[in-house]
Amino acid sequence: MKTLRIGLCGTGNVGFAFAETIIKSNPLIKKNYGIDISLSMIGARKGKVSGLETIPVTKDIQEVPLSDDVDVVVELIGGIDDAYELAKSTFNNKKHFVTANKALIATHSKELFELAKQNNVHFGFEASVAGGIPIIRIIRDGLMSNKINSFAGILNGTSNFIFSKMADEGLPFETALSLAQKEGFAEPDPTFDISGQDAAQKTSILATLSFFKHAVIENIYFEGIDKVTPQDISFGKQLELILKPLSVGQLSEDKITLGSFPSFVKEKSLLASIENESNAVLMNAENVGETMYAGPGAGAKPTSNSVLSDIIDIATGKIFDYQKFVESPLASSFENFSCDHYLRFIVSDEPGVVAKISTVLAANNLSIDNLIQNELDREDDAIPLVIVISNSKEKIMQNTISELQKLPEVKNSISHIRILDI
Amino acid sequence: MKTLRIGLCGTGNVGFAFAETIIKSNPLIKKNYGIDISLSMIGARKGKVSGLETIPVTKDIQEVPLSDDVDVVVELIGGIDDAYELAKSTFNNKKHFVTANKALIATHSKELFELAKQNNVHFGFEASVAGGIPIIRIIRDGLMSNKINSFAGILNGTSNFIFSKMADEGLPFETALSLAQKEGFAEPDPTFDISGQDAAQKTSILATLSFFKHAVIENIYFEGIDKVTPQDISFGKQLELILKPLSVGQLSEDKITLGSFPSFVKEKSLLASIENESNAVLMNAENVGETMYAGPGAGAKPTSNSVLSDIIDIATGKIFDYQKFVESPLASSFENFSCDHYLRFIVSDEPGVVAKISTVLAANNLSIDNLIQNELDREDDAIPLVIVISNSKEKIMQNTISELQKLPEVKNSISHIRILDI
Repeated sequence: MKTLRIGLCGTGNVGFAFAETIIKSNPLIKKNYGIDISLSMIGARKGKVSGLETIPVTKDIQEVPLSDDVDVVVELIGGIDDAYELAKSTFNNKKHFVTANKALIATHSKELFELAKQNNVHFGFEASVAGGIPIIRIIRDGLMSNKINSFAGILNGTSNFIFSKMADEGLPFETALSLAQKEGFAEPDPTFDISGQDAAQKTSILATLSFFKHAVIENIYFEGIDKVTPQDISFGKQLELILKPLSVGQLSEDKITLGSFPSFVKEKSLLASIENESNAVLMNAENVGETMYAGPGAGAKPTSNSVLSDIIDIATGKIFDYQKFVESPLASSFENFSCDHYLRFIVSDEPGVVAKISTVLAANNLSIDNLIQNELDREDDAIPLVIVISNSKEKIMQNTISELQKLPEVKNSISHIRILDI
Repeated sequence: MKTLRIGLCGTGNVGFAFAETIIKSNPLIKKNYGIDISLSMIGARKGKVSGLETIPVTKDIQEVPLSDDVDVVVELIGGIDDAYELAKSTFNNKKHFVTANKALIATHSKELFELAKQNNVHFGFEASVAGGIPIIRIIRDGLMSNKINSFAGILNGTSNFIFSKMADEGLPFETALSLAQKEGFAEPDPTFDISGQDAAQKTSILATLSFFKHAVIENIYFEGIDKVTPQDISFGKQLELILKPLSVGQLSEDKITLGSFPSFVKEKSLLASIENESNAVLMNAENVGETMYAGPGAGAKPTSNSVLSDIIDIATGKIFDYQKFVESPLASSFENFSCDHYLRFIVSDEPGVVAKISTVLAANNLSIDNLIQNELDREDDAIPLVIVISNSKEKIMQNTISELQKLPEVKNSISHIRILDI
C-alpha cells in the first residue's frame, strides 16, 4: 500500500481540525484509494499539542520540510513571511506543499509556482479560495479546456454574513459585525475581511486560473464593506435588489476587469439566494455557459477537507504545472467596468435639487433608470434621494460622482453601490 | 508534444458539436496542456459527415476501436446495445473510452468498470450526469475523502423546464411539454424524460459514486412527472412551495434510500431558484457540509465540454479505477424515506368529509400540518381539499393513501407530492 506522510505546520483551529480529519479519514482513504495517509510530524510554536501527543512535535516549523519522515508539508500557520520560507524550503527539498493561505499565493504565486515546477512537486491550494467548494479543481480540470469569459463570486463569508444580517434583521453594520464575531464568522480583528483585502486576494487567484495569466494583487480594485448602511439595503429592497459582497472578473474585447466590492444583485438571481456565511462562484465559460458552485466558504472542517483533497491528488500522482499560469502578466483595469449604479444622496429639501443633479447626469451622458424620493423620509430639512443610473462605465461614474459631491445641496458623502445583472 | 487521437462514434447533434469543439479547442489545449488532441476517425452510419469531410469515416462504428489511428473512442451514438459492444471492444483493444450515455452506464457499469480496470484504461463519463456541471469529478476528486450523507438534484432539464413553465405561465402539463419540444428541450418522443427513467439512471450513477456501492437501476424508485396539474402548482404557491423534479439519495442509520420524483421544495431553498432547463446537485458530505453545483443540464456544447474534460484527464495520465465502486451492491429501499407530504383531494361537498379523512390519518398516526379548503373552488358539488402531512415514512403514507382512496367521498385519484426540506 502506498503511504504518504504529512508534516503539519500550524495547530490552530484549522490545523487541529485537519489533524483530526486525517486520523479519522485514514481508514476510508485506505479503503477508497489504497493509500495510507498519516501524520508524521507537527510544527507548532508552543512545542506540544494536547490531543495529538503521539505525533512528534517541533517548535521550529522550518524543521518540518527537512525531516526524512515527511513527504508533504501542510501549511496552516497563516501570514506571509514564515509561510513563504516554509514553501520555498519544502520545494527545494523536493517535497509537496499544500496550503490554505490565500495571502501567500496572492503575494508569491509566481516564485512558488516556478519553484514547484523546477522541483517537479505538487503545490496544492484548493483550500485558499471558497473553503469547502472545490473551485480550483473545477476550473483546472473541468472548465479549462474552454475559454472562461467571466466569473462572479461571493468569496468572503464574513461580509456575506454581515450583509445578510443587516438585511434580515435591519441591523446597522457595527451590530452585524459584532454578531459575526460572536458566532465565530469574523476574527477579533476583522480588518482583513471588512477592507475587502481578503476577497481581493481570492479574486487574484481565481483570475490567474480563469484567464491563464498572472493577476497581481496590486491590480485588483477593491472596496471595503463598512460604508454600507441599513438605508441602502432597505432602498435596495424597494428596487428588488439584494446586497452581496461580490468579486468579479470579466473578459471583454480582450480587456480584463477585476474587482471586489459590495454590489446589488437582482432579488431573483442565483447569487441573491446565497446567504449568511456561504460562498458561491458563478463561472461563465464559452462552451459550458453559466455554472454555479456554492457551499461553506470557511470553517475548519470544510477547509480541512479541501486540504485533504489536495493530498489525495498528490497520492494519486498529480503534479500540476501551475507555472504556465503566471508566465505572462494579466493586464487588468477597472476603468472600463460597466454596470448599472445606485446612488444615494441626502439633499436639502428645496425646489430644483433633482433638476440640478439631473443636469450633471445629463451632461455626463448618464440616464436615470429609477428615482426614489419620499417626502415622509424628511429629516431636518434634508431628504434622501436614490437614483439608479443605467449601464455606465466606471470612469465616467467616478467623475460624475465627484462633480455631484460638490453641489452645495448634497449633504452626505454620496453612497455609491454598483448593480450587477448576473 | 503529446498527441491523442480521437475516434468519434456518432455525429448527431452532440457528436457534431463535439467534433467542432475538438477542432476549435485544439490550439488552446496545445497551449494550456501541451497536448495535441485531434479527430482521427469518425464512425457514422450514413458514411459521410458534411462539414467534416477531411476526417476518415467508416459506416461500421465497430471498426473505430480497431483502428491503429485511434487512442480514445468517444461514444455519442446513444442507445444501449451497440454502445455496449463498442465499449467492450474499445477496452479489449486497450483503448480509452469516453461517453455521455447514462443508459449505458446505468445498465452495464459493473462489467464496463471491471473491463476498463483489467485493461488499465480510462472510462470517462462526466457528460452522463448533469451536462456541463463537472459533478463526476467533484464527487470523485473533491468530496470522496469524506463520507457523503446525501445528495439531492435536479437531473432532468426537460422536466424542470416543464414545471417552470407550468408555474410561471400557468400552463397545463401538455402545453408546457409542447413548448419544451418546440424549444428543443424535449425529444419528439419524450417518454424517457417524462417517465422519470432518465433521472433514475442518473440517480443510479450519482448513488454509486456517492455511496461507493453499486446502485442498480432496478432498485431506484421513480415516478413520472405527467400527473402533476396546474392546481397542484398553484396550491404549492399558497404554501410557499415550488415544484421541482428531484432525484435524491440519503444515507441514514446505514440504510440508503434512492428515488426520482416530482417534489415540492421551500420557496427560499437553493434548489427552488434553479429554473427552466438548468440542472443542479446539492451534496451533503460529512466534513464539507452542504455544497451546491448548478448549470446547464444538457445541450450539445456543455456535453461536448464534459467529454473533452475526460479526454484531457486521459491525456494527463488519469486512469481512474471505478471498479472498486461496483464491487459490492448498494442495498437501497424507498420504504423508509421520510418527508412531509402534500395530498390533494377532490371531495364531495357535504358535511363530515374532513372529519372522515382526519380519522383515517389519525388512525395511521399521521398529523396534519396544513389544510386548505376554499368554498370558492367548488365545482359540481365537489371541492378541492389540500392536506399537508408532517414528516412520515413512505410505507405508512402509501398505505394511508390506499385507504383514503377507498372513501366514497374522495372523487379523484389522490394527488400525492412529497415535500422535501432541502
